[in-house]
Amino acid sequence: MEKISLGEYDIFVGDIWKSLNGLLIEFNYSKIVVLIDENSRHHCLSILLSNTDIENLKLIEIPSGEIHKSIDTCNFIWEQMINKQLDRNALVINLGGGVIGDMGGFCASTFKRGVDFIQIPTTLLSQVDSSIGGKLGIDFGDVKNSIGLFKNPKAVFIYPDFLKTLPIAEVRSGFAEMIKHGLIADREIWEELKTIEDFEKVNWTSLIVPSLKIKKQIVEADPFEKNVRKKLNFGHTIGHAIESLALKSEKPLLHGEAVAAGMICEAWLSVKKNNLPKTTLNKIAEFILKTYDKVSLKEATFSDLIDLMKNDKKNEGAAINFTLLSHPGEASINHTCDEEMIAESLKYYIHV
Amino acid sequence: MEKISLGEYDIFVGDIWKSLNGLLIEFNYSKIVVLIDENSRHHCLSILLSNTDIENLKLIEIPSGEIHKSIDTCNFIWEQMINKQLDRNALVINLGGGVIGDMGGFCASTFKRGVDFIQIPTTLLSQVDSSIGGKLGIDFGDVKNSIGLFKNPKAVFIYPDFLKTLPIAEVRSGFAEMIKHGLIADREIWEELKTIEDFEKVNWTSLIVPSLKIKKQIVEADPFEKNVRKKLNFGHTIGHAIESLALKSEKPLLHGEAVAAGMICEAWLSVKKNNLPKTTLNKIAEFILKTYDKVSLKEATFSDLIDLMKNDKKNEGAAINFTLLSHPGEASINHTCDEEMIAESLKYYIHV
Repeated sequence: MEKISLGEYDIFVGDIWKSLNGLLIEFNYSKIVVLIDENSRHHCLSILLSNTDIENLKLIEIPSGEIHKSIDTCNFIWEQMINKQLDRNALVINLGGGVIGDMGGFCASTFKRGVDFIQIPTTLLSQVDSSIGGKLGIDFGDVKNSIGLFKNPKAVFIYPDFLKTLPIAEVRSGFAEMIKHGLIADREIWEELKTIEDFEKVNWTSLIVPSLKIKKQIVEADPFEKNVRKKLNFGHTIGHAIESLALKSEKPLLHGEAVAAGMICEAWLSVKKNNLPKTTLNKIAEFILKTYDKVSLKEATFSDLIDLMKNDKKNEGAAINFTLLSHPGEASINHTCDEEMIAESLKYYIHV
Repeated sequence: MEKISLGEYDIFVGDIWKSLNGLLIEFNYSKIVVLIDENSRHHCLSILLSNTDIENLKLIEIPSGEIHKSIDTCNFIWEQMINKQLDRNALVINLGGGVIGDMGGFCASTFKRGVDFIQIPTTLLSQVDSSIGGKLGIDFGDVKNSIGLFKNPKAVFIYPDFLKTLPIAEVRSGFAEMIKHGLIADREIWEELKTIEDFEKVNWTSLIVPSLKIKKQIVEADPFEKNVRKKLNFGHTIGHAIESLALKSEKPLLHGEAVAAGMICEAWLSVKKNNLPKTTLNKIAEFILKTYDKVSLKEATFSDLIDLMKNDKKNEGAAINFTLLSHPGEASINHTCDEEMIAESLKYYIHV
């Protein structure tokens, strides 16, 4: 088992159970609530329960999916917390993917002005990305993560064996954030990931730890996203907009699928605005389009997409803010692109 | 003008305008939103606008009253913030009473994971109590302040002249927290308040500053209410329950009216459990009943009231937690009383 310390809390990766049981004994919580959805109930809950000795356990179950990362679901969770008479010495365990972690952490942090929570991410996306760094929240008014706060969990427990039960599309979605970590901060990781052809044969543990360490370094340098943490936004300005629009369509996209498309567009912008070699753009586009189905984008939706980008939290004032690559493994923040150029990048994606 | 520093922020009392304008120039906010209700729009907004030089001002107006301190109103405020395209460098000015300050601070702290806010409390209650100490939130599921967080404002500006436009019932409501501050921490203040017979003749500024200083000392010693801050809960365990129940009735109570009743009940419990002299109970009951109309309590509602007390945030586990007096100016925390004794205290109030 590997332990990574991130400021005031620890991230445990591997055989987590002894450390988890130790924490539960140490803090002697009055009640423990496990937040689950139908997927984590089916695939992960019995593994958690058989490896821990939790008394006074309560369950709160919500339906899975980004569309439920909403204030309505928060209302349901808070009502359940009141009904189960949680006091301030209770613990919330978020067992699931990014939606469970982000929303469960938000509800815990605002219930009775804050009860402790721990993250047990069960998807690759949440294991390498969303469970780390203290960002909590929900989608609101078509804008992803527009309501939320920064609050650290008591600890994060990453059990890579959970990935064995994950649909391949979910693995692919998480993989996009690993590609991003390589592209913005570590060329070797990017080169290694590019060689992956069959997800079934990957040793995930050996890839998760270095990916987590990239995120850890960036988050520690800038916990509240004043500057360098914006590097993690590569692919996300356009990716979030694509994801938000798809959320309302008949065929929603997984987060990583949208980010993968966003990374191609933003690599194109990187060529125009940040001297990224065109050969690198070609390699990025080639690898991503080999790994991910092409997202269906229509020119008629470009203005909706750009409107969504204008509401991105990272913007200051009216300009749309981008993180752009200069080389594989190097990124710089606070580039602005005008609407015409953004539309050009979307056209590039459609025709590449 | 008096300046009181509370940890990382300052509280300005008196002629606040120069300091407020200085802060607005220093931080150069991208947009400024003023949150108001119909009362603060009518009585306070023009005073604010004529004394400050704010560009890019936006208004968000919500209906007044505790019943609107709800997640529905938060949804409205967040929607308005999105529509007005607030970015992370925006400022929210909460101009109003406790509802505006608590809810506006909560919405600001959770919008795009947190934008700055300042408190300009316009009622006596918010000037001496709710604007100080970083507690933010809303009522949820019949439980007062059950959703929220701790977050400090950028500054608090207290302009006592706003009180001139306040209905006398609102002044009386805020006065209850000043009585509480005296009873738990400063006998001299309690003795001075007891001599007040006509609210019209009071010099409020001279009373607000010492009252604020009591709250400041307690909050600084224990910002997250782990121990001594619970002293501020005197009168509130029962008071909150009475207020919550009245909220659903045809005749809602003001916060201080409910707390005044709660202080009588909890002073009775203080005699039983904390050796408060019975003569002090008599003086407290006499002065409060001279100042406030008696609240109509029915024995049939006692079990509802006690159920509400069980959900109080200050409880740990099943026991109901009280702060009780030992003398005027002295209180101690973490007393528990059984349901029968609580019912007795409510009966005392009915018959005194």
